[in-house]
Amino acid sequence: MAHLVYPGALHTRFHHALGAFHLLIMAIDNLRTKGVELSDKEAEAASIAALLHDTGHGPFSHALEALFIEDVSHEEVSRLFMEKLNEEYDGKLELALEVFDGRYHRPFLHQLVSSQLDVDRLDYLRRDSFYTGVSEGSIGSDRIIMMMDVRHDELVIEEKGIYSIEKFLLARRFMYWQVYFHKTAVSAEQLLLKILKRAKELALQGIELFATPAFSFFLYQKISKNDFRANSKVLDTFARLDDNDVMASVKTWMDHPDAILSILCRKIINRDLYKIEFQDTPPEAGYVAMLKQKAIEKFGVSEEEADYFVITDSVENRAYSSESTRIKILLKNGQTKDIADVSDRKYLAGLDHTITKHFVCYPKELVQTPEEVL
Amino acid sequence: MAHLVYPGALHTRFHHALGAFHLLIMAIDNLRTKGVELSDKEAEAASIAALLHDTGHGPFSHALEALFIEDVSHEEVSRLFMEKLNEEYDGKLELALEVFDGRYHRPFLHQLVSSQLDVDRLDYLRRDSFYTGVSEGSIGSDRIIMMMDVRHDELVIEEKGIYSIEKFLLARRFMYWQVYFHKTAVSAEQLLLKILKRAKELALQGIELFATPAFSFFLYQKISKNDFRANSKVLDTFARLDDNDVMASVKTWMDHPDAILSILCRKIINRDLYKIEFQDTPPEAGYVAMLKQKAIEKFGVSEEEADYFVITDSVENRAYSSESTRIKILLKNGQTKDIADVSDRKYLAGLDHTITKHFVCYPKELVQTPEEVL
Amino acid sequence: MAHLVYPGALHTRFHHALGAFHLLIMAIDNLRTKGVELSDKEAEAASIAALLHDTGHGPFSHALEALFIEDVSHEEVSRLFMEKLNEEYDGKLELALEVFDGRYHRPFLHQLVSSQLDVDRLDYLRRDSFYTGVSEGSIGSDRIIMMMDVRHDELVIEEKGIYSIEKFLLARRFMYWQVYFHKTAVSAEQLLLKILKRAKELALQGIELFATPAFSFFLYQKISKNDFRANSKVLDTFARLDDNDVMASVKTWMDHPDAILSILCRKIINRDLYKIEFQDTPPEAGYVAMLKQKAIEKFGVSEEEADYFVITDSVENRAYSSESTRIKILLKNGQTKDIADVSDRKYLAGLDHTITKHFVCYPKELVQTPEEVL
Amino acid sequence: MAHLVYPGALHTRFHHALGAFHLLIMAIDNLRTKGVELSDKEAEAASIAALLHDTGHGPFSHALEALFIEDVSHEEVSRLFMEKLNEEYDGKLELALEVFDGRYHRPFLHQLVSSQLDVDRLDYLRRDSFYTGVSEGSIGSDRIIMMMDVRHDELVIEEKGIYSIEKFLLARRFMYWQVYFHKTAVSAEQLLLKILKRAKELALQGIELFATPAFSFFLYQKISKNDFRANSKVLDTFARLDDNDVMASVKTWMDHPDAILSILCRKIINRDLYKIEFQDTPPEAGYVAMLKQKAIEKFGVSEEEADYFVITDSVENRAYSSESTRIKILLKNGQTKDIADVSDRKYLAGLDHTITKHFVCYPKELVQTPEEVL
Repeated sequence: MAHLVYPGALHTRFHHALGAFHLLIMAIDNLRTKGVELSDKEAEAASIAALLHDTGHGPFSHALEALFIEDVSHEEVSRLFMEKLNEEYDGKLELALEVFDGRYHRPFLHQLVSSQLDVDRLDYLRRDSFYTGVSEGSIGSDRIIMMMDVRHDELVIEEKGIYSIEKFLLARRFMYWQVYFHKTAVSAEQLLLKILKRAKELALQGIELFATPAFSFFLYQKISKNDFRANSKVLDTFARLDDNDVMASVKTWMDHPDAILSILCRKIINRDLYKIEFQDTPPEAGYVAMLKQKAIEKFGVSEEEADYFVITDSVENRAYSSESTRIKILLKNGQTKDIADVSDRKYLAGLDHTITKHFVCYPKELVQTPEEVL
Repeated sequence: MAHLVYPGALHTRFHHALGAFHLLIMAIDNLRTKGVELSDKEAEAASIAALLHDTGHGPFSHALEALFIEDVSHEEVSRLFMEKLNEEYDGKLELALEVFDGRYHRPFLHQLVSSQLDVDRLDYLRRDSFYTGVSEGSIGSDRIIMMMDVRHDELVIEEKGIYSIEKFLLARRFMYWQVYFHKTAVSAEQLLLKILKRAKELALQGIELFATPAFSFFLYQKISKNDFRANSKVLDTFARLDDNDVMASVKTWMDHPDAILSILCRKIINRDLYKIEFQDTPPEAGYVAMLKQKAIEKFGVSEEEADYFVITDSVENRAYSSESTRIKILLKNGQTKDIADVSDRKYLAGLDHTITKHFVCYPKELVQTPEEVL
Repeated sequence: MAHLVYPGALHTRFHHALGAFHLLIMAIDNLRTKGVELSDKEAEAASIAALLHDTGHGPFSHALEALFIEDVSHEEVSRLFMEKLNEEYDGKLELALEVFDGRYHRPFLHQLVSSQLDVDRLDYLRRDSFYTGVSEGSIGSDRIIMMMDVRHDELVIEEKGIYSIEKFLLARRFMYWQVYFHKTAVSAEQLLLKILKRAKELALQGIELFATPAFSFFLYQKISKNDFRANSKVLDTFARLDDNDVMASVKTWMDHPDAILSILCRKIINRDLYKIEFQDTPPEAGYVAMLKQKAIEKFGVSEEEADYFVITDSVENRAYSSESTRIKILLKNGQTKDIADVSDRKYLAGLDHTITKHFVCYPKELVQTPEEVL
Repeated sequence: MAHLVYPGALHTRFHHALGAFHLLIMAIDNLRTKGVELSDKEAEAASIAALLHDTGHGPFSHALEALFIEDVSHEEVSRLFMEKLNEEYDGKLELALEVFDGRYHRPFLHQLVSSQLDVDRLDYLRRDSFYTGVSEGSIGSDRIIMMMDVRHDELVIEEKGIYSIEKFLLARRFMYWQVYFHKTAVSAEQLLLKILKRAKELALQGIELFATPAFSFFLYQKISKNDFRANSKVLDTFARLDDNDVMASVKTWMDHPDAILSILCRKIINRDLYKIEFQDTPPEAGYVAMLKQKAIEKFGVSEEEADYFVITDSVENRAYSSESTRIKILLKNGQTKDIADVSDRKYLAGLDHTITKHFVCYPKELVQTPEEVL
């Protein structure tokens, strides 16, 4: 939903997949130049894994993921698509699956596709900062790739690229807080989540809702991980879903008889988003209760239904984690070291923890009587 | 459909409207700096006209325009939206309507909004060249605006900006032939046109088609200019339509029982576009007849229905027209002259005529049997 | 002297040489990809010719060229440097010399280095438009190179690149008139020319002038083409000369006892440039005579010396010449055609002639008495 | 000397002065928009201070500063130029001098011109990263300026601009280590320093050296702070000096009879720079002694003169200093806080100390005998 803040940000996952694929091929060319032995099969496997790594995302991914296919992560769905293609192509994606899973005996191939410094992040940060115009997120993807090397089958970065990596870590931090967690984007995503939750609730009660066939499929039944595996129609139908299905339906629901659904849909379509308040600690219970009481009165809803109007949750990000695969620097003397341990980089330790921001959001009209404004 | 060739080109009319509005305000600021007297009301009127000039475009505008609202141009619909807002705002858009129509007594305001050198073109050329990456179309919009002045209430360009205007005219020429009329974009648009034509045909026969309510409204009845004026529901429903409605429906029609509709929809969704052949003269009748005969055999359709598969048409563009409002240059000696008459600009006369390119397009499989390939 | 108008334009011939060399290598890689057979020796020869093609330019090239080494063009000096290196490297530049001269039996190699569409122009237009910020001159060098191919050992451009070539021709036109012949740049260059002419005149009279040893060498004697060949010290000394020698000396001459020299030098250093008037025809004799008379009175100089203060000359440019090696387009049907003969490109004929602009320039103070201003 | 590494980096102090001036004016416009009261005189004073703040830098500033005018900083010389202009303009720069000195009673004006977040840094970081192509140093100067406000006459930054400030601090860190202290740039600067030291030593011994009159003035006498004040010829002559004087002379000295001077000059002109080794601690005395012994043997110089060939020194930088004027953030609740104390910014404390890098540099040939290489 970041395009509501940064209107140029309309690029798609398809672009990102092509971008990650392109960077992976650049990385492989570079590694071969430096003498890393890589068979054509290995190169192909890593390219496929990069190209398909995000196919499991549904439309408005994180919103749908949570609601429709509760126990299936997008990585698992990506994997299912790869398995399906593997069957179609007579096992030619076997190695790609090993790389994707991290089962292949040369870890750097998996690290290129999925790690703290993978082609996924190298593509999306650059792409998103370009299309949003947020210069703080711009990174030198090309240069970082040129600085990559391999030691003992692990990905390392040449020492002279260390500043580019520092900037990459900080750029990611900036993009999370300025773009992905921008208050307007979070508020809009929360609204969409509630719309989908309400729609699903109504659907499961048997109430009629306009929706495309593919969207109906997921609205009118609970789909589990098992269903994805057992019933090929699930994956096929999932593949047909995109933003068009969701937005065409949401527009229609502006006129739905269910008051809650129609209010929420009108709000998102008319850009009458919830006001959102971020803070370091969870909002006070009393404050939230007060807001809910107002929502109950204003919209004539039950206490339970007030959760559609007053939403509390949190977002979190960690700039660098020494607990997952570390970013290794190849020093000029031939040693490798965790980036946070290289001299003059002690400040990175200050970024090695999760930052959590709590928020509450609610319709503006709940607080807009003159007295309350004062 | 240019995004099928240039994947970054996903920007919307909303962006373009904001851009044209922004350039109009820059132009007014600049003109005031040069001593052109402009009341706040005039400035507001021109800004509104620039902001709303394209509101009458439907989704995939040129495709829908031709089929659904046959005798209403998008300019007329834009005007209807402005009239409606004028009512809502108690006549505050009266002056904007005069400027938009060209009825206002100071022609330069209309020229800024709609002419051979208006903020519409200044925005879309720059925007489209940025998002496509086609550097041939990039223009110096800011500089052109800084070069604008007014003489006898007509827009003129200072002589020192003449090279920027030449480049602007040529950039437009390049964008038409490299982007807007790129063969893949034209082929995809033709396919979409045929899909909508077929869908409308089926709908008017009473055959059921999945579509959003707003889209159904236009599919299942013929809407005339009069309807737009007489029935406010028409304009309201038109305002609800966007690309989501069309694409969500087209995806669904891939499974429609009508063979022609489903084939065409599968082709566009799976990017199996028609092969297209451009040439300076209309394709030979014999060649087209041969292709149609193949289509009849291949798809088991009637001669009339073969028109869905073998399409002939043309596109045209004129880089500069001395027949519409000319671009006037303000010479250093105070005279004004048509740009094509300024010394050393004789070559522009060579661009003052319409270039027409004819094409035929058809499914690749019509010519792909081994013998024919040879 | 364009940096006086566009302050960012401080890039050097060294950059340009690297750029042309880089583009040449890109071109060769691309041609090989398309199946053009090119030995490593041929590739090396063309690269060397591109890298060294401009080594014969002295500081402020066109100014010095005209005055100091009257009958030697910069191409001839470049060739002398290449010959010298050929001796040092035991004949390894033999093939590069053949390519440079156009003696090699495969003309496309020479065309890449020196023609109407060579790496020289592809580099300098892009570089100069980048550093000046004149967007009219920006060209898609990379794309043009990707469009190159070879037929019968002649360079051709694929038809789909034709718009990029059109834009290239027009960009060159724009850069000549907006940058290289910008009135401030021309005026400053004329002033520098007169300074150097005066300095040489004084030097040949035996008058003492501060100058670096290398600069003195060229100031205090007449150097002919023969001297360059006969005396290796000439070429060595020429290689030592750069802008620093000229500007350090010109600054010093602000205090020279010769009134003409010191006035001219103070004018250029303090940016008190001559006023310049451009027009399509030579300035009227009476007007020039009147200006000279004023100069005689104002500066107390002789009629002959008045030429230092009132300068008439002209600049000229031809956007495309059908008389030199033509730009050939490789049509989709396999034919090749001169770009100006490809359909819808008739307007290029309008650019196929030399445009000449005449000018007169003179110190502002010649016309600034109150009566004259009125 | 960074252009030896990044050839595009040829921009001048003149550009930087215009840039800082431009940013200052933007800042003032923005502050006025936010309701900060600023008289035209105050605005003019701050603009003048920004425009002239660097006029005291000589050619190759830090090299010359240390050697020629030992006890005068470039800030003091800038101040002298401002005082001189103040005299010429009858006291019109009085207020500018107050702002420059920090004596004016509204500190934010001085902070704009000289602080940890001034227009000087905002310009040079952006300019240098643009011309070097080092994307790590690119900052959003425009956005930072839009985020500025004033509280109690102190400069503050709105909370929503905090990520831009973080990035600014880190960009500066990156530019220091990647560009300003790039090993090639440091090595070249050290060489130039030694050349100037040697030249001055010879000059003070009365040995003849080719140099422009202005350069000779500073070579052949010791100039103290008092001389600058007492003798107006010193400042006038300083104003005439630029890079041309130095480089034209250094080229000439390649042939000077003094062996040390001519070797050093040939090395810098022919780009045969010293090898440089950076490390966290000072190089070991034994290692340096060994290198000097080699230099003594190789170049036939005395122990003292070996210092021209084996150079030890250090560079240092501090990304953020809580000890000088702190960067203040204006929180949404109206409070102001040091940026390092705002929540989730603890990592900045890790940047609040001076990092020092020691180096030794010496001619490559000292270690290139075959045995030593092995």
